Amino acid sequence: MATVTLTARPLTKSEFAPFGDVIETADSEHWTINQGFAERYHDLARIDVGAKGGRPLVNLLRAKARDFPLPVRLMERHPLASQAFVPLNPSPFLVIVARPGDTPRPDDLVAFVTAPGQGVNYARGVWHHPLIAIGGERDFLVVDRGGPEENYDEVTYAEGAVELTFASAG
Amino acid sequence: MATVTLTARPLTKSEFAPFGDVIETADSEHWTINQGFAERYHDLARIDVGAKGGRPLVNLLRAKARDFPLPVRLMERHPLASQAFVPLNPSPFLVIVARPGDTPRPDDLVAFVTAPGQGVNYARGVWHHPLIAIGGERDFLVVDRGGPEENYDEVTYAEGAVELTFASAG
Repeated sequence: MATVTLTARPLTKSEFAPFGDVIETADSEHWTINQGFAERYHDLARIDVGAKGGRPLVNLLRAKARDFPLPVRLMERHPLASQAFVPLNPSPFLVIVARPGDTPRPDDLVAFVTAPGQGVNYARGVWHHPLIAIGGERDFLVVDRGGPEENYDEVTYAEGAVELTFASAG
Repeated sequence: MATVTLTARPLTKSEFAPFGDVIETADSEHWTINQGFAERYHDLARIDVGAKGGRPLVNLLRAKARDFPLPVRLMERHPLASQAFVPLNPSPFLVIVARPGDTPRPDDLVAFVTAPGQGVNYARGVWHHPLIAIGGERDFLVVDRGGPEENYDEVTYAEGAVELTFASAG
């Protein structure tokens, strides 16, 4: 079986729409608050965590940088909830996603690289790779679900089936 | 009437406990996820937004830096919900809070300065000053409430009644 090699394209709201929300100021509804001292970019992610007694959690994730080419060995999904990741410094990261459905094949995977400052919110049920930090250890704010009921599925791939290439701008 | 001058003390979980949560990795429950590539600091803020048909909103705030001494002319509270602020770069900001109650007097106000990376979550009903960025324009992630019903009260102070001093480490 030939290896499927994923290449990351720039993250945009329109291309990411089937998978969830891009959390960014660009092209977002906003208005001035705080007596002129702040601009509010409003309601940027559909936080969908209430199913089966769920509640919103705010967490921090400290992620190690990945090496490339990155072997893609698994994808995960949260059948009960959305999950948002916002970087706590303005550096890019990578995401791999697939549309909701039973078992994404390597050919179904799509990779994106964020612009500095962009975050993502995976819609409920969207398959995604665990966080892919680049360039060093990175912190993220994560908004997801706490509550009863199992909220995790995964699919695994054989060694050599899928890889993600990336060359940083350096 | 003499001016009440507030001085910011370092933000700590224990001192901030009457007002809400400090969102930080230090002294927070955590465990390793993502096949060893990330550490999850879990459930760091009590997101309390469901009252009267509310839902969680994720927003970005772009704040201008303040000058000091800062005249404190108003405090606000959200009677129906918590409100969390997490800085999107590792620089400090200032907060002024007062315990829930009908009308905080200048003497009731308490000021804190965050360590780089710390965020805050104001508990429902806690009086707080609008965001006080320092050092330049700063972006924040905000988790608060959307929904029906009025969720804003404010109290104002006369010119010269309260000010906040701050000298950055430079």
